[in-house]
Amino acid sequence: MQQEIVNGDRRALARAATLVEAGQADPLLAELFPRTGNALILGITGSPGAGKSTLVDQLTQTIRAEGKTVAIVAVDPSSPFSGGALLGDRVRMMQHHADPDVFIRSMATRGAMGGLAATTADMTTLLDAAGFDVVIVETVGVGQDEVDIARLAAVTVVVLVPGMGDDIQAVKAGLMEIADVFVINKADREGADRLARELHAADLNAPVIPTVAREGKGIAEVLAAVRNIPPKNRTVEHWRERIRQMLREKLLKTISLDELESAARAVAERRRDPYSLVDEILQRFSY
Amino acid sequence: MQQEIVNGDRRALARAATLVEAGQADPLLAELFPRTGNALILGITGSPGAGKSTLVDQLTQTIRAEGKTVAIVAVDPSSPFSGGALLGDRVRMMQHHADPDVFIRSMATRGAMGGLAATTADMTTLLDAAGFDVVIVETVGVGQDEVDIARLAAVTVVVLVPGMGDDIQAVKAGLMEIADVFVINKADREGADRLARELHAADLNAPVIPTVAREGKGIAEVLAAVRNIPPKNRTVEHWRERIRQMLREKLLKTISLDELESAARAVAERRRDPYSLVDEILQRFSY
Repeated sequence: MQQEIVNGDRRALARAATLVEAGQADPLLAELFPRTGNALILGITGSPGAGKSTLVDQLTQTIRAEGKTVAIVAVDPSSPFSGGALLGDRVRMMQHHADPDVFIRSMATRGAMGGLAATTADMTTLLDAAGFDVVIVETVGVGQDEVDIARLAAVTVVVLVPGMGDDIQAVKAGLMEIADVFVINKADREGADRLARELHAADLNAPVIPTVAREGKGIAEVLAAVRNIPPKNRTVEHWRERIRQMLREKLLKTISLDELESAARAVAERRRDPYSLVDEILQRFSY
Repeated sequence: MQQEIVNGDRRALARAATLVEAGQADPLLAELFPRTGNALILGITGSPGAGKSTLVDQLTQTIRAEGKTVAIVAVDPSSPFSGGALLGDRVRMMQHHADPDVFIRSMATRGAMGGLAATTADMTTLLDAAGFDVVIVETVGVGQDEVDIARLAAVTVVVLVPGMGDDIQAVKAGLMEIADVFVINKADREGADRLARELHAADLNAPVIPTVAREGKGIAEVLAAVRNIPPKNRTVEHWRERIRQMLREKLLKTISLDELESAARAVAERRRDPYSLVDEILQRFSY
């Protein structure tokens, strides 16, 4: 499967993506990893209604016009369905869905606790190895999940719009710290200049680019700003955090909620001691 | 060593406590665990200057007057010294330091990240197995560490004083949720009634006991309230959290900061893949 993916076989890639979503792709990803590090991995996040999808469409069009390939991962942490109806509609609406050099994959939570950020990161690893020039991770919705997902991208774009009020500003607080580039979309609206001034005043050390994505305005500038940011996925800091996170995820996978419950019960009733019990769980890694 | 501890040998107990602090007591604690569950484990926390130490002294005196034994663990998360000068003074100041049926141990951070709450919990396991009727965990200072430490006690007493102002009230916010019993110490001061009313109004479902610890007032009432609370260390919920925490702690111990750094560097430079690397680290548990 590894060779097919590297050779550009899209059906093999789709099968591999399914393995990634199921958390069963580690051996494959281990083999593919040396081929990664070439793609630009772009996280795009922001408030609902900010125009993220339109921006992604326009960026894709511009990158395709350069003769380069694009993979898009649309992530919806709030949806219980994998590739559910809403995301399906979203995919069909995209003007590039028929272009063989644009690969689109939607992902959603499966009711499992955590793990979505890690799965998304693994998906970008797969797409990077498959040779896409640019991998765009678009998150739908707002929350800690989005922050976690975006943090794993090489370059993070936070999309804002003028006049969203104080509530939304508060929601955005968590996103402010992770932004490498700010996009003020719908910049033809009232309040765009004020928002730009506020962002500059906050001294967040990230460029602020006004766009009107619907009309294709400012798209080239966003791409130029993004390409000017040193990608995080080549830094030691990025991998330090990622390795820690992978360790934690693997560990929690080894114990089911049912098993934890009966273990806790045995200890509470003093039928087991917690020390040897924890050792026993950890010894499962000796497979 | 196990038998000596159970037989009440204080020197063996002190040696075992040192092993616990060094994180090397798991086999011993596994053996001792079936003998635990009899001690009342009492966490005492609150703002600096609230009179926690005086309260602990007075509680100890009352419990000793009943003919029962007491172990006191004084924890200072902010101090870089184990059993440092300040805590040493604290111990010598206590009126019970010459009583063979009162065992006093001070603990402090060793500059290691996290782990103090877990070490404190292990220490209470040791003292419980050693046959003390009551184990008091007194935390010095205020912060997330104190919350974590207190949460692992069977019953948590939060000590407040009247007239500490809004700043302190905010600091206490994290402590409010973990309180099984509130003590309003220095209750002869102005504002005690108002504080009691505020606590009742907040509907925290925990009794509020006024004391003047310096004069021994209200001590019997505190003890009665504490003994009326079902102890957490016998519940499944308590052990579910504790087992998860023990798993995480053990995992993080297996990788040093230096090793994590060079691993992250190897991955960032694509000399290693993170998937097989994480598996390699986890396979160390197969000892």
